[in-house]
Amino acid sequence: MSDDIAFTDHDTALIDSAIELLKADNFTELSELLASHEPAEIAHLLESLPDIRRSSLWMQVPEDFKGEVLSHMGEVALLSLVGHIDQEDVVNAAVDMDTRELASVIETIPDDIGEAIRESLDYRGLRELDATLAFPEDSAGRLMHTEAVSVRADVDLETVLRYLRFRESLPDHTVGLMVVDREGHFLGELPLSMLLTCQPDILVSEAMNPDAERIRPEVDQRDLAMLFRDHNLVSVAVVDEEDKLIGRVTIDDIVDVIQDEADRQILGAAGLDAEEDMFAPVIPSARRRAVWLGINLGTAFLAAWVIGLFEATLDQVVALAVLMPIVASMGGIAGSQTLTLIIRGIALGHVSSSNTRWLAYKEVAISILNGCIWALVVGLISYLWFHEILISSVLAAAMIITLLAAALSGVAIPLLMEKTGIDPALAGSVVLTTVTDVIGFMSFLGLATLFLL
Amino acid sequence: MSDDIAFTDHDTALIDSAIELLKADNFTELSELLASHEPAEIAHLLESLPDIRRSSLWMQVPEDFKGEVLSHMGEVALLSLVGHIDQEDVVNAAVDMDTRELASVIETIPDDIGEAIRESLDYRGLRELDATLAFPEDSAGRLMHTEAVSVRADVDLETVLRYLRFRESLPDHTVGLMVVDREGHFLGELPLSMLLTCQPDILVSEAMNPDAERIRPEVDQRDLAMLFRDHNLVSVAVVDEEDKLIGRVTIDDIVDVIQDEADRQILGAAGLDAEEDMFAPVIPSARRRAVWLGINLGTAFLAAWVIGLFEATLDQVVALAVLMPIVASMGGIAGSQTLTLIIRGIALGHVSSSNTRWLAYKEVAISILNGCIWALVVGLISYLWFHEILISSVLAAAMIITLLAAALSGVAIPLLMEKTGIDPALAGSVVLTTVTDVIGFMSFLGLATLFLL
Repeated sequence: MSDDIAFTDHDTALIDSAIELLKADNFTELSELLASHEPAEIAHLLESLPDIRRSSLWMQVPEDFKGEVLSHMGEVALLSLVGHIDQEDVVNAAVDMDTRELASVIETIPDDIGEAIRESLDYRGLRELDATLAFPEDSAGRLMHTEAVSVRADVDLETVLRYLRFRESLPDHTVGLMVVDREGHFLGELPLSMLLTCQPDILVSEAMNPDAERIRPEVDQRDLAMLFRDHNLVSVAVVDEEDKLIGRVTIDDIVDVIQDEADRQILGAAGLDAEEDMFAPVIPSARRRAVWLGINLGTAFLAAWVIGLFEATLDQVVALAVLMPIVASMGGIAGSQTLTLIIRGIALGHVSSSNTRWLAYKEVAISILNGCIWALVVGLISYLWFHEILISSVLAAAMIITLLAAALSGVAIPLLMEKTGIDPALAGSVVLTTVTDVIGFMSFLGLATLFLL
Repeated sequence: MSDDIAFTDHDTALIDSAIELLKADNFTELSELLASHEPAEIAHLLESLPDIRRSSLWMQVPEDFKGEVLSHMGEVALLSLVGHIDQEDVVNAAVDMDTRELASVIETIPDDIGEAIRESLDYRGLRELDATLAFPEDSAGRLMHTEAVSVRADVDLETVLRYLRFRESLPDHTVGLMVVDREGHFLGELPLSMLLTCQPDILVSEAMNPDAERIRPEVDQRDLAMLFRDHNLVSVAVVDEEDKLIGRVTIDDIVDVIQDEADRQILGAAGLDAEEDMFAPVIPSARRRAVWLGINLGTAFLAAWVIGLFEATLDQVVALAVLMPIVASMGGIAGSQTLTLIIRGIALGHVSSSNTRWLAYKEVAISILNGCIWALVVGLISYLWFHEILISSVLAAAMIITLLAAALSGVAIPLLMEKTGIDPALAGSVVLTTVTDVIGFMSFLGLATLFLL
């Protein structure tokens, strides 16, 4: 208990102890340490170890944890672990996974191990797995538990209480029982708190909440996360097209969805995979990152080409070469502020067709204000530096033009991408930087060519 | 019900309808629309309207929703709304907030309205408010509900069931009852599922989970979020230094913590406030963003100064001016990949003192690999462009140096900031860009000066 009280830095303390025990080859204490933690914590620990150390730790994971540990790992880390451990171990671990976990693991691991797992399943398990895999990725159907407890509306609470006592257990995160009719149509939810506080002789139909939220399995996980957040839900019923109850989604999975969505945005903005493994081996990591560097090299050469158009100007006024990165850099910064805000607004459902014009107006107004302020500042500083009023004026004018273009592209790029189905969190920043670089260099050097030569 | 089924794009549909009704001055339908939604959805809607439209919508919010609506709004949006509506309205709304909500609202709104709210509270309310405000910001104490239902360990389940029926209601998100001894010490949790499925004649002490997690109110919210995630919790007991039960934290608040933390990282990386209001008025928004632009202007001038050191070189070889942004740009991109990964790793508890050396080694190895590959590519392309083998070699060498420096600073900057208490999510990218710009320009132009002149 004192262990839980001293909870701060919980996770990194586990990492440090585990690494120490691994280094000392003290496997007895290591397996004791692991046995006293949750599978999710062990998965987190595995992800915090370098690739090569993971298989030695894996061997000390308690057998009955292994399924849950695998199902909690990120895609890239899972794939690398599975490559280093006994295939049979993975197949055995799969037995302890529920269908949802199994579906997500099987989509990640190599096909041959997936096939071995499928062969180990019984007919019912296989059918459930295929039913889950049939739902689109990132849909509610993939998160759905099928073991919801349902009761009929026309019985009294006393009967429900007797039934539960006979049942002997309830699934995790059960805060209510699903109420269905004879054909399985979802009628509402009977909160456990009502079951416990109402008189036992009233009917389920009188105590239940008939307006309980219900969703279809095709609903996107992110929309589902908003529903949970806005309605303070712990679980929600999933129904088919005939309104028949087919399962429920619980909040512990929604917490993961919110976390994954944040990862996708944070890592995606730097061109990293949402499932990126911090301790992945060097070669595949380098390869994954090289793609992003390559794309950015393309835009850097584009900017260089724009500069190249003004070689003659630069040759005459070398001060321009010194000052030109300032305009492009400020454009990039201002543009990425707008871009980040709009992408986040889209993700959180703040941006709709009827408020984008206001948004664009506001961003443009901000950029004009800030453009004028910083144009004055850079104009002044560059004048004190080079004592060339014309260069300073051109720099100031280019700053205003570039910040304005940055605001417009910061609004337009994510909205256009969203419409055409490109993920702005991934591709937005490259496109934006390209625009701000090109306009930044072009306006500064172009105006300089017009007025200075 | 059909309304919930067609759930996709839920939030933006509400925004569109509300804006249409606002434009048509159709306040009757508008207030009906609002009454059929949750307070959290209305808060979200208010945040999705431009500043000037918010007060007209606010007037149509059902009176009994107003407290919850205010408590769900982001800081900046709340502050702007409160500035536009009747102060009395805010004071009246405060009556419907629980202590936790009130504490967070009172810290945001202007002091005079806060004072008016305090005056409207009774002695007990005021004492509870001050007790909550005494906990550090972002601690579990600020999230804690004080109305947990507790039972004694030495009674049987039948007695508990009778007590609950007498009590007539349970707080939201109750999945278990807190078990305490005569002095109020926390002994464990009695899950409702055990209460419902065990035989009524057994004792609470036999059915309860004595290992249920408990935390102290000082625990940081982010650590708490990890605990909830790793242990699949719905609620957790909060105890004081004597292990006495003082409240509980529920998962609906943890969902908000995870969301806020993601906002902090995503918006912070662009120098935006975590509570930034998308539709805030132009002037204050421009002012908030100007700070970030000003800081970045400083780093841009620093880079310009570095370039200025090599004015003589640039004057002789103008091709250098064309190519120099490529090195700095690639350094910035590669560095921000490392930086993003490390910041995310710190936030999710993957980085500890014992694995940072591995991490640094891996990032350096990746940067050398990618440095060599892209050095070759830029060398080749620049040779095809300018036919100057020396310039191309200098460019390639500068690329390797800059990517290496980018990796080292991408690891070192967030770790050093974390140690000195600076938030790397906010300040990391500016410092990193400064380093990569300076090293990028310095290595390229420096090597060029050495070998070309």
